[in-house]
Formats: sequence, C-alpha cells, structure tokens
Amino acid sequence: MKSVNIGIIGYKFMGRAHSNAWLKAPLFFDTLMQPVLKVACGRHEKDVAAFAEKWGWEEIETDWKKVIERDDIDIIDISTPQYLHYEIAIAAARAGKHIFCEKPMAMDIRQAQEMLRVCEENKVTHYLNHNYRRVPAVALAKKLIASGELGSIYHWRCAYQQDWITDPGFPLTWQLRAETAKAGPQWDLNSHCVDLAQYLIGEIREVTAMTADFITKRPLAEEQQTGNLKAGASGLGTGEVTVEDAALMMVRFSNGAVGSFEATRFANGRKNRLTFEVYGSEGSLVFNLENLNELKYYDNRGKAGMKGFATILATDESHPYVDHWWPAGHIIGYEHTFVHAAVDFLDAIATNSPVTPNFETGLETIRVLEAGLQSATERKTIFL
Amino acid sequence: MKSVNIGIIGYKFMGRAHSNAWLKAPLFFDTLMQPVLKVACGRHEKDVAAFAEKWGWEEIETDWKKVIERDDIDIIDISTPQYLHYEIAIAAARAGKHIFCEKPMAMDIRQAQEMLRVCEENKVTHYLNHNYRRVPAVALAKKLIASGELGSIYHWRCAYQQDWITDPGFPLTWQLRAETAKAGPQWDLNSHCVDLAQYLIGEIREVTAMTADFITKRPLAEEQQTGNLKAGASGLGTGEVTVEDAALMMVRFSNGAVGSFEATRFANGRKNRLTFEVYGSEGSLVFNLENLNELKYYDNRGKAGMKGFATILATDESHPYVDHWWPAGHIIGYEHTFVHAAVDFLDAIATNSPVTPNFETGLETIRVLEAGLQSATERKTIFL
Amino acid sequence: MKSVNIGIIGYKFMGRAHSNAWLKAPLFFDTLMQPVLKVACGRHEKDVAAFAEKWGWEEIETDWKKVIERDDIDIIDISTPQYLHYEIAIAAARAGKHIFCEKPMAMDIRQAQEMLRVCEENKVTHYLNHNYRRVPAVALAKKLIASGELGSIYHWRCAYQQDWITDPGFPLTWQLRAETAKAGPQWDLNSHCVDLAQYLIGEIREVTAMTADFITKRPLAEEQQTGNLKAGASGLGTGEVTVEDAALMMVRFSNGAVGSFEATRFANGRKNRLTFEVYGSEGSLVFNLENLNELKYYDNRGKAGMKGFATILATDESHPYVDHWWPAGHIIGYEHTFVHAAVDFLDAIATNSPVTPNFETGLETIRVLEAGLQSATERKTIFL
Amino acid sequence: MKSVNIGIIGYKFMGRAHSNAWLKAPLFFDTLMQPVLKVACGRHEKDVAAFAEKWGWEEIETDWKKVIERDDIDIIDISTPQYLHYEIAIAAARAGKHIFCEKPMAMDIRQAQEMLRVCEENKVTHYLNHNYRRVPAVALAKKLIASGELGSIYHWRCAYQQDWITDPGFPLTWQLRAETAKAGPQWDLNSHCVDLAQYLIGEIREVTAMTADFITKRPLAEEQQTGNLKAGASGLGTGEVTVEDAALMMVRFSNGAVGSFEATRFANGRKNRLTFEVYGSEGSLVFNLENLNELKYYDNRGKAGMKGFATILATDESHPYVDHWWPAGHIIGYEHTFVHAAVDFLDAIATNSPVTPNFETGLETIRVLEAGLQSATERKTIFL
Repeated sequence: MKSVNIGIIGYKFMGRAHSNAWLKAPLFFDTLMQPVLKVACGRHEKDVAAFAEKWGWEEIETDWKKVIERDDIDIIDISTPQYLHYEIAIAAARAGKHIFCEKPMAMDIRQAQEMLRVCEENKVTHYLNHNYRRVPAVALAKKLIASGELGSIYHWRCAYQQDWITDPGFPLTWQLRAETAKAGPQWDLNSHCVDLAQYLIGEIREVTAMTADFITKRPLAEEQQTGNLKAGASGLGTGEVTVEDAALMMVRFSNGAVGSFEATRFANGRKNRLTFEVYGSEGSLVFNLENLNELKYYDNRGKAGMKGFATILATDESHPYVDHWWPAGHIIGYEHTFVHAAVDFLDAIATNSPVTPNFETGLETIRVLEAGLQSATERKTIFL
Repeated sequence: MKSVNIGIIGYKFMGRAHSNAWLKAPLFFDTLMQPVLKVACGRHEKDVAAFAEKWGWEEIETDWKKVIERDDIDIIDISTPQYLHYEIAIAAARAGKHIFCEKPMAMDIRQAQEMLRVCEENKVTHYLNHNYRRVPAVALAKKLIASGELGSIYHWRCAYQQDWITDPGFPLTWQLRAETAKAGPQWDLNSHCVDLAQYLIGEIREVTAMTADFITKRPLAEEQQTGNLKAGASGLGTGEVTVEDAALMMVRFSNGAVGSFEATRFANGRKNRLTFEVYGSEGSLVFNLENLNELKYYDNRGKAGMKGFATILATDESHPYVDHWWPAGHIIGYEHTFVHAAVDFLDAIATNSPVTPNFETGLETIRVLEAGLQSATERKTIFL
Repeated sequence: MKSVNIGIIGYKFMGRAHSNAWLKAPLFFDTLMQPVLKVACGRHEKDVAAFAEKWGWEEIETDWKKVIERDDIDIIDISTPQYLHYEIAIAAARAGKHIFCEKPMAMDIRQAQEMLRVCEENKVTHYLNHNYRRVPAVALAKKLIASGELGSIYHWRCAYQQDWITDPGFPLTWQLRAETAKAGPQWDLNSHCVDLAQYLIGEIREVTAMTADFITKRPLAEEQQTGNLKAGASGLGTGEVTVEDAALMMVRFSNGAVGSFEATRFANGRKNRLTFEVYGSEGSLVFNLENLNELKYYDNRGKAGMKGFATILATDESHPYVDHWWPAGHIIGYEHTFVHAAVDFLDAIATNSPVTPNFETGLETIRVLEAGLQSATERKTIFL
Repeated sequence: MKSVNIGIIGYKFMGRAHSNAWLKAPLFFDTLMQPVLKVACGRHEKDVAAFAEKWGWEEIETDWKKVIERDDIDIIDISTPQYLHYEIAIAAARAGKHIFCEKPMAMDIRQAQEMLRVCEENKVTHYLNHNYRRVPAVALAKKLIASGELGSIYHWRCAYQQDWITDPGFPLTWQLRAETAKAGPQWDLNSHCVDLAQYLIGEIREVTAMTADFITKRPLAEEQQTGNLKAGASGLGTGEVTVEDAALMMVRFSNGAVGSFEATRFANGRKNRLTFEVYGSEGSLVFNLENLNELKYYDNRGKAGMKGFATILATDESHPYVDHWWPAGHIIGYEHTFVHAAVDFLDAIATNSPVTPNFETGLETIRVLEAGLQSATERKTIFL
C-alpha cells in the first residue's frame, strides 16, 4: 500500500483529534493509502515536541512554511484557528500539497474564493472538515433524504448550543476576538449547521439573521491559544468581546423549504448540542449530536395508528461506516467522525476523485454566514 | 355560593372544551362562584340543540345578539372562530357582560384596541383563553423565572408544530382563508407562543419574520365550519389558500433576551407539539405540550459533575393547580387547562380583580403577530 | 335513554375518581344508559355530605347495607379499601345489583371465589376496576398483540414503582397494615400488573417471588383512612408495619413467555410509574404510565437500517377511545381511564353482556398474587 | 518509561477491542508503562497474520503455550472464548505473567477458585475485563453511591437485552453450546450485570432464578468461532441449543437491598441494552449502555417541586476518565472503556497494586451465576 506523508500545522484540540484519526483510519478501515505522521508543526517548540512524541509524529517544526516547502510531504493538515487558514492553504496548494483543513474555512468570502481557486488551479485534493456529515446517523439522514424517503422537504430547524462562556469570568480567548475568529457562534457553530443544511436540504437563497451580545467585556486571557474550550485569566485587566454571543438565522432554500438556525454559547446545560429537525411530505427526522448514535425517523406512509418517531440506533452493519466498528448496539463517539473523514480523504487522493465537504461547498457556507452577518447589521433579508 | 349565568357562542371543538371546564371547575376546585350553563348559541339550530342537551346547557339560541341582550346572562363565552370575536365582544362589553374569549383575540390591532377600550370603559372582566399558561408545568416555569431561579434570560426558543394539513387533499376550511382566519399558523399557533413568551420572558420590541406557502390550492370544503381539525371535501372544485402554511420569527425582548418562533402545520409526525426552551444565566427550562406534565429544568448553580436537565413531573401537590386533582404521578391532560382558566376567571369576577391573559396582553400579542406579518412582507425588521 | 341509579360506597380518592367518571361518561361518549348519581355512602356523615354536595350525589347514607336494600339502586359502586369488598359485593350481588368494584378485588382466593360465584348465581354484571386496561395506549398494545403484530411473545418485563412511604415519618395508614390491606405493593400495585399481564400476554402458570421490608416501624396514623396517599401522624407512638415494602416476581406463562414484576413504594423519584416491556418474535412494546399517552413500538419486520422503537402518541382518532376526546396531539390523563370504564360498564349492563376485567379475571389475579406471597415465604416456585 | 510486552491470545471481536485499547491508552493517558504489542496468537495462521499486520503486533504464533513460555512477554491478554480461560490463565500465572482476561472468567466455580489461587500464589496482577465499570457514567454512579449521595440502597433493577439470535435461522455458534459457553445470557450477559451489582451495591447473599428456552434447534454453524455476533449456517443440518435463551434472577444483598436481573438474547429492538436502576433512601440512578454517556440522577434531598431525574451528560472534566478525551459534550463510545481498563491495568502493574475487577471479584460473580443456574433447575432460592 502506498504511503502518504502528512504535515500537521497546529497541535491543540484539533491536533489531537486529527492525529487520532490518521492513526485509527487504517486500523479499522481498509484505506487505499497508508498515512504517515511525518511532521508536526507549532509555534512553541517544547509543546509541539511533547505533542509529537505523544502521537508519534516523526519530526517537529516551528515554522509552517518550512513544512510546506518539504518535498516529502503529501498532505498538509491545517489544524490551526481560522485566521491562519488562508495563508497556509494558499501556500500548500501552490506547493501541490493535498489539504485537510479544519473549519471554519476562512475569514471571508474573498479568502474562500481564492483558496478554492488556487486549489483547483493546482489540482490538489481539498477537504474541509465539517466532520458531522460523517456521523453515521447523519449520513443515514442524507441517504433517506436523497432516496426520496422524506419526499419534498418543508422545514429545516436547527440549533447548535453550548455554554462554555456563560461565566463572565471566562477570559477573552482568541475565539472571542474578531481579528482571530472573524465572528462568534455564527462562524464557529453555524458553519457546521449551514454545511449540514446544504448537504441535507440544498442550496440557500435568502438569509435573515439576528445576533446578540450578552457579555461584552471579559478578563484578558492568560494566553491567546486555547485548544480545549478552557482557559484562565491573565489578571491583566479586561478587554472588549468583539464577536457576537449568539446568532439566529432564518433561510429559504432554492427548493422552497424554509430553515432556521440558532447558534449560541449561552445555553446553560447544553455542552455541545447540535440538533436538527427535518420535515418533509413523506417523513421527518430528528438528530442531536450529544446522542449522536441515534436518528429519529417518522415515516408518514406508515399504517394509521402505528406511526411515530422511531429511534434508530445507527450502529447496525447496514448503517454508513458502522460495519467497520463494533457489533450493533455498541456505540461510537465524537472522534470517530474524524476517522471517517480521514478514510474518505485518503481514498479520494488515491483514486484522484473529489471529496466533500471541500473548499467549494465551504465557499457556499461562508457566503451564507457572511450574508447572515450582513443581515444582522442591516436588519433586512439578504438574497444570495 | 353566588351563581353566574353563562351564554356560550359556538359549540364545536372549543364549545365542548369550555363546557367541560364550566362543569368541572366547581367539582375539583372551590370556586367562589357557581357557573350555570344557561344558554348555548349557534347558527344551526339542530346542532346546537344536540350540543346543549349533551352538555346540560339549559336553553338554546341561534342569534348571538339575543343572548347578549338577556339580562340574566353574566358571562359571554366566545367560542367562535376569530373573525366573529370583535363584534361579539364589543356588544357583550357594552351590555356589561364579562367575557371569556377564545384566542386568537381578533383580526387586527385596531379590533384588539377597540375590544380592550370598550371592556375597560364598561368595567367588565375580560379573559383571553391562551390556556397553556395554566398547564401546571408552564405555571411552574413562570414561578421559577419570576423568582429569579433562572437569572437573566438569554434565549427563548419555541416551536409550535402540527401536521393536519400536509395532505394536499385536506380541504379549504375556514382556517385556510384570510377572511375568516386572518392568517395561518402565525395567527393560530404563534398567538399562543407569543403569549407565552410575553408571560415568561417579557415585552418584545423587535420582530423579524418569514412565511412559507407549501400548498396553495385545495379542494373546497364540504362546510366552512370545522371544529376538530377534520373536514371533508365538497367535490365542488378547488380554491386558493390565502393564509401562510408556516411562519418563522426572530425577536428581541426589552430585557435583552433573543427569541425564535416557528409555527407550522407541515411538520409530519407532530400533532400538537408546542415546545419551548429558555436559557438563563442561572438555569434553563424545556417544555413540550405533547408531554405537558413534564418540565425539564437545569440548575446551573448545582454541584459540578452532578448537573443535568431534571425532568420534573409537575404533578406534586407543590405544583400549581395540581393539588386539586390526583396524587403525585397521576397525570392530567389538555382539557384541564381550561378548567384552571374557568376557576381563575370565576374567582376574578367574584373578587372584582383582573385575570390574565386578557385583552390587554392580547393586544400586545396581536401587535407582535402583525409586526411579524409586516416583516415577512417587507423582508426587514420591525421595531415595536 | 334509560337511567340507572348508582349508590357509591366510599368517598375518598376513588370516590372522586368514580364520581367524575359517572358524570363525564355520557358527556363525551354516547352511553347506552344514563347514570344517575343517586346516593353516596360513608361512615362519617359530615364528610360524605360534603362529598355528595360537591359531586351532585342526590342523597347520602352512612350504613352501606341500607344502600343495598334500596329498590331504586341499580349499581353498587364499591370505592372502599379492599377489606370491605367481600361483604359489600356479596350483599350487593344477592340484592341483584350490578357491581363496579375497585381493585384489589378481595383479601384472598376464598373471598374472590365466593364473590364470583354469588355474582354469577345472581346474574349481575360485575366489573373490577383495573382501569389501566383502558388507557388508549394499553388498549392499542392489546390490539397489536391480539392481531399478531408482535408474533410469539417471549418476554414481559414490568415494574410499578412509587415513593410515597420512603420517609420513615410517614405514618402507619391502613395500607400498611395486613388486616386492612392484606399485603403491600404485591396487593396494591402488582394486582394492576398481573391484570395487565393476563390481559396482554395470557395465563400465568408458575410464580416465584421475593419480598422486602425496609422500614418496619412507623408512627401511628392520625386517622386510619387516607384517600390521597397522604397522611399525618397521630403523635400516639409507633406500630409495626405488617405488609411488605416491595415485592418482586418471576413468572412463566402458559404460552411459554416469561415475565418479571417489581412493585415497590421505595423507588425515590418514581411517583406512579407503571412500566412494561413486551418482546415478541415480530415486535416489541414499551409503556410507562407516567407518560400514558405514548406507546413505544418496534416492528421487527421493518426495513433493515430503518427500524427503531417508534413513539406512538396514542391520541389519534384511530386509537381506542380517543376519538371521543380531542384532536390528535391533545393528551388525556389518568382520570380518563375511569370514564372509559364507566362507559363500557354501562354499555355492558344495557346489552346484558359481560365486561372485563371482572371477578372472573380478578380471581385469577388474586390466585397469582397469593402464589407470590406463598413463594416469598417458602422460597420456592409455586405452580398454579 | 518502562515498556511491557504483551502477548494476546485470540484475535476476533475482543482481539480488536483490546488491540485498540493498548494502542490508545498511552496516547490519551499518561500511562506509567508503555505497552508493546509483541505477539498475537491464534489457531489459524493466515487470519492471525492479517490481524497482526493490521494492528501492529510484531510477531505471530499459533500455539498459545509458546507465547506463555517466552521470557520477553510480561502480559498475557486472554481474548478467547471462556472455555479456554482456565487453562491459559493457570499456565500464564505459573509463568509469572500478568493477566488481562476477558469475561466471563471461567466455566465454573472450581476453575475460578483455582485461577485466583494460582495467580495469588505467583503474585501476578490479574484483571478481569468487566469493562462497563469504566464507563464514565458508571464510575460516576459508583462515586455517588460510595460517597453516600444515595443513602441506603433499596433496589437494584437491571436488564441486559440483545436480539442477535431471534432469527431461528441464526446458526448454532459456540455461544449456544454448553461445552464452549457454559451457559447462555446468564453467563455472557449476567456476568456483566452481577459484576456491576457487586461493584455498585455490594455482596449478594441469596439468589432465585428462572431460565427460558425459546428456540431449541438451530442450523449448524459454518465455523464454530464467531467474533462479531454474526455467523452463517453450514448447510449440514441442525443441532441442539444447549444453553438457555433468557435468564432472570432475583437477589438479596447483604446490606438488605433487593435486586433483579433479566438477561436475554430475545428482546427484539434491543441491540446491546444494559440498563440498571438504583433506588436509595436519598436518591436514585438510571443508566443505559446504548446511551452510555448519560447518567440519570434523582436527588431526593432537593427542593420540593423542583426534583426530577437529571440527565447528567458525563463528559465534563469533573467526570471519571473524561478529562483525557474531548471537551464537555463530545461523547465517547463503547471502545473507550477498554482503553480505561488498559490504563488502570498498566498502572497497577507499574505500582504493584491490585486492580479490580479481577479474579477475586470474578470468583464471587461466578458463584452468583452458578447459584442462579442451580436455582433455575431446583426451582428454589439458593443461599450463598
């Protein structure tokens, strides 16, 4: 089996999740290529060295440009915050590297367009890690919708709710500053939701949005980088939160369906709840990421009096990806979605075929998210 | 105990629900007045006679004006479709009758304003039957929020979903025509939701909305009146649906919270699901009308590692209204909310004190609903 | 419509529930006979007078024998604790009265046999109020099993859990003394469960049981009669609890299925949770009384990958009894089961046909319960 | 960090789960020793070679005795069916190897006693893989009970339900034959449940059980070994199922609590549902393995009217093991329990301290399971 060498930029939360994925992909799946954890890159040498040793990255580097310059690297894994994606991706594509990029894709439409253009020009495989498409229950939802089991779609109702910053003492990390994060939950969380909506329902053609700011000043953070949604205050005073705390959107899809989105970091009790409901003429679906092995499915064509939302435990061998894991009823978790992504990405490279989501679908997502920010400012509907 | 004589106008779905409430109120509660089911009024003599006999209304009438003219009637119970509320309420108030009025209150702001003005002028007790305030679990939610257990409120997320018209063969009943219904789910369902939002969260000061039309032509209905969300086609051709099929709204409250609403008759599998989530700085709540004895409550001040949404079965004697029914764990249903309303209305009359919701809160609701319709047309935010 | 005159013996919890049922039955259903609330009987004249006035019983009586002697009484409604059932039922049957009797039926097999014999001899209609058979979701379960939708039944798994006596300060009410209650949850709760098991699964032919005693002494109660599972201590010292606190059983049915029962008053957090699971070769069911409008149904013949437990909201017009109440999705509660029982009992009298459960099925239930007590004492399986 | 060399015997379902655990343990945790995947052993050379290559086992072997004879092996990982545990474990212990043994421990009490004795004699670390103790939610349950949060325990109610053999065409695999499996769900599933009961509640002192046989003849299996609960028929006729299809038990614990168990492979719709309920004087717990990140907790000391079962999503850093994985709300799966076991086992070896469950607790489990089989045969209670 052919090997591919990976260089990873970034080593925090996503660095771990990606490393684990590269390691597990060929163990549980028959990948067409063997990923090699070649070089890990980060600004703090000591930290990146510890990370590399832990996860088996063969070498380390502190300057990402040097990683890209190397001839022996086939894949650049971009696991940094979003403000660095553009520069790294452009350089990687120009160097002919395949790209496995964390979300959100970029800081604006212009960056996203350019990233896509340069990748296409250089014919590299580009993958954007909206990993929730590869939750088996979500992939099953796609299969049901695509095969017509739900009929015409009327409604998409989605929320992504977290609570990690409801404490006013939570510091001003990079996620809360516009220059590093671009926006708040609209960028971080709704990017996932819009990606799923486009995947499951289709193209969005109008957007109306509203944002809210609940806590506008916070203690300065001990350090700007946080990898695990936890951080300490530096004790050096406070600063302005420059991103929104919550973002709501209503959209209309090209196929006539309507949708709603609600992304917030202020929903106490919700740790990582991404839930969506889909209602169609023939059936309905409900999903919740905190219980990701389940998909609720209502078949409107069922027998009168016996219809109801069925809780499908998507762990059967008939379900997407699942036959590679454990027997039915033995559930999988969050990290498995990264493994599925790694497998499909490696296979796409091996077969020289595209994989989605990618910079093309990502550009569409960024377009919707930006329209949302614009709508929230201008207080009117934006037509795409 | 003093008696009060009731004249009811309308005898379909709501006629039954109200009759049951008047009968049960003094049996399960110690009402301050004894309701007497005096006269039932409807246009079809034979039908109203059958209704009256069934439920023990002493007399019948086919002209509602004659009911209002009677000196022996204390209360006018308006159980008709909304397009008749205005005329009946104005006449009843002028005749000094107390008013127990079904929702939605009126056809527009002007009607609602006038209804309120005439009631106040004539010093009659007016009650608007947004009955869900009197679900024990909802009353408990109010108690928790009002006592500060949830802290500052950040989010209201609400949906009211039904599926009774997803079949394109469902006929063009009065609910689907603007002249009798004013609007679709925005009027019928969101009126409940906005009432609850104002009750639980507070005043709404900006509204952005979107509506959708999924099925625009339907068979003409066998008869225009339907009382139970069921109807047959007349076989006489088709007509235009002149109300929306779904209505979405985003709002901002005066206290800084943001809210979302989603009302639809096109959510297959949802029969009468009114669900809301409330997120505050100290705690959160979730309610679902299809399982109305439960309230989910998250206490953010709990012990680390032991916090979670607690499913409170609101059937303890400590819960609002419930000590009048059965022992803990013996659940109540939809119709009990009407009994609670009847009890509180009778007591308000007896003590000459106001009861809510009423035409004052109802006017505010209509204001929000109309702003929603305007926003959906103009595609921009409406500031109240 | 012919009227039937009812005399009720007992006026506490069950007195209220039955009165409500007699009143509502002809309002929501087209009963074949009109029940007349003729005379209410209880030992404490003042209390029974208040009860009668509240609920509209025309007359009162303090000696139940006098009620039975009256020629104008057609139905004796036995709403007393179980230790009085035998004497009253025998006298009522001998007087040719139809009997609507609360559960548990009697204090032992001998009483139950005699009650059945005398009723049959006197050709009176006898009904035993295991009311949960008439929860629409339970009646739906019966329909599914009887029509073969579940195939051969393998498992019945049932628990009835309450927590009203976990406080050691809860006094020694009549329910906790063998001379008035016969036994604890084995008699009070498992009688319901065994009735349901016989109804849904079939005849039981072997029983193995175990009982537990957690709190063996309690304060003497203020008064021996309690109607609402609440009571105060008298301050006159303590007494011995002479019934079990929990009762577990394993059974084998004649059809080869196996079953388990678990009845307790020591399950903190469970107010009135009667839950059962049924597993068959073609499908499975789950029910929970605290959420009684729902039935979960798994269809094993469904399409691979799309199977799951469907939550049927048993409020459609297609579901048993429900078309008489409200539109789909508008849930009913505990008390509605009594109304359904009253309707079926009245119709049985009118048509001179039997109604179940009755003293015949009740005798079988008592047989199983007694076998359970015997097994728990002798620590071995009892074969019926 | 010191390395330890592992030799694994068996390479099917458990071989994969264990291999994954050895690989991930040092990545996500700071184990005190570095596990080295030295040699994999199985009877079919080709299959074991493929397994070894996939998972990175350095060498292969077809005779397990040779693995044990090797001086460079520190740990014997017994991943075979239970009928081989005894012989391998005795040999491994005598050779001074530490033992990581799959469950169920042995074929009878005598074997279990001897395994324990020889391990103690040879001072090797022995671990028995009842992995569910290391589900974070279960470890949290232990913590709550051990710290007294539940008070005195009254009830343990447990079921382990699967449905992989409800199809009569499912062949006679080794799990269905007494000579290889000893018993059916009593051995396979109830071993887990009894282990958990002893861990969470305490010592069991009396047992009453019942078993059931639903399908007694099956097609002979294509091959006797199945690793994933799937198998094909050989087409060579049928054979007798010599283990039970379901096993129910009632137990009494030394502390006065009572418990029930229900293990079956005939619960259609249940894939791998291990659920338990614990009721104590101060609180209650509910767990379900198919949704293993959640623990439901009822605090009886809470405020009146605000109590309910709280769904704790056991993914916070405050929860056992979880701080090594992902941020709160990012769920883990079945396989993670094996990683936790590997970590604790490695640390136990490094610190020369015992780890549980082990052959000592396992012996107690086997004692209860055998008492259950005896009780089911003799139809009476067995006192331990």
